[in-house]
Amino acid sequence: MSEELTEAGGKTRLYVPGDLGAGMAVALDEGQAHYLLHVLRAKSGNLVSLFNGRDGEWLAEIAQVHKRGVTGVCRKQTQKQAEVPDIWLVFAPVKKTPADYLVQKAAELGASLLQPVFTRRTIVTRINQERMLANAIEAAEQSGRLSVPQVREGVSFDKLLAAWPKERRLYFCDEGGDAKPLADTLRGTTGPAAILTGPEGGFDPAERAALRALPFVTPATLGPRILRADTAALAALTIWQSVAGDWN
Amino acid sequence: MSEELTEAGGKTRLYVPGDLGAGMAVALDEGQAHYLLHVLRAKSGNLVSLFNGRDGEWLAEIAQVHKRGVTGVCRKQTQKQAEVPDIWLVFAPVKKTPADYLVQKAAELGASLLQPVFTRRTIVTRINQERMLANAIEAAEQSGRLSVPQVREGVSFDKLLAAWPKERRLYFCDEGGDAKPLADTLRGTTGPAAILTGPEGGFDPAERAALRALPFVTPATLGPRILRADTAALAALTIWQSVAGDWN
Repeated sequence: MSEELTEAGGKTRLYVPGDLGAGMAVALDEGQAHYLLHVLRAKSGNLVSLFNGRDGEWLAEIAQVHKRGVTGVCRKQTQKQAEVPDIWLVFAPVKKTPADYLVQKAAELGASLLQPVFTRRTIVTRINQERMLANAIEAAEQSGRLSVPQVREGVSFDKLLAAWPKERRLYFCDEGGDAKPLADTLRGTTGPAAILTGPEGGFDPAERAALRALPFVTPATLGPRILRADTAALAALTIWQSVAGDWN
Repeated sequence: MSEELTEAGGKTRLYVPGDLGAGMAVALDEGQAHYLLHVLRAKSGNLVSLFNGRDGEWLAEIAQVHKRGVTGVCRKQTQKQAEVPDIWLVFAPVKKTPADYLVQKAAELGASLLQPVFTRRTIVTRINQERMLANAIEAAEQSGRLSVPQVREGVSFDKLLAAWPKERRLYFCDEGGDAKPLADTLRGTTGPAAILTGPEGGFDPAERAALRALPFVTPATLGPRILRADTAALAALTIWQSVAGDWN
């Protein structure tokens, strides 16, 4: 068997949008070809792992290497398709570097969907959806996931709640008031869920009141210290996975 | 009463090394003076919160503003001293940007002490302790903590274990094998604890075996996906606070 490409931290895994199956040839994109040939110095016959979010993970042999690109041929399925738990992260977008970090970490921590929401105190007015997706793909590749989190367009707070799918419980990280610790609110729960975290300045009082009045919303706290917006999102996802997700 | 300085996300809090007490004058350092005068445009009579890790939190009035610096006079104690839970984070250092991030987040998440450890697969060979402390102070100021995490010098893996205080349980985040989920190992525990996370390439087999043979070590897993080194550290601290710390 040919040599599998390995890097510090693990084997090389690449996300591809096309179908995967025994003997199928898959064209890799320009960035992936560059990475394989010029960073990892891959050659024909080397093996790389591919996944597409539908067909599991495949060991593919690098079959053609030329100026135009690289083609991989699927040789063996190494994992059947499996989904991450059904947990969305709904978050007020933060500025550039923390935003990259937040998306990467959320993908590693197993979020199934990322939904930016513009609240009254959100300072960031635009999000770069393409960059978010690129960060999510990279993190999915490195984390061993078999799917990439879906990255939604930004939406206003009011539209988010108006269009909310009522069967999905929304855990709202509330800094003030009488909310219970998140782990306590989650214990014993099942079914689709979402975490909602606010911007640096928090939710405004009208937003907090609106959230608390909705039947599908559960307020929850994340301890006695003030967490930055991105820290709160990652801490809440961690607790969800640990109590109601697949870390148990 | 004079105006309290507020920023997006909360009031202004500054860490000072000197003593705090009713009527005491405290000289702020050059960086703090610059921040107050030129970023927040503070004036004499404005109020700022100070803490030193010993005397609680004090509202101080900016009393002297001149070229040489700024002095604050303690007017009122707003919080009595309180400690974060006794949880250490022992981590293989990572490269620059993730290292900054890790230290900030660990301080927000309430770590009491940060101990870098050089393992066999740790790529980073030097740590900037001064930079780590500066990041820890900034995060402590923003998070509402009344103390700054202690930042230790880096130590080798062997020395760490040889000098380990045996009454402190060490939770070792182990990627492979039969370890239980971290939340399960923590349930019902009390007393001093520490989280140990490895470098990007993980612990080597000899290190894992050495850890598992020690009576003060408990191996634990953080779910089925591969987490980056910094993500693992923050997820483990979050779970500890949620199960055994002060988030409950």
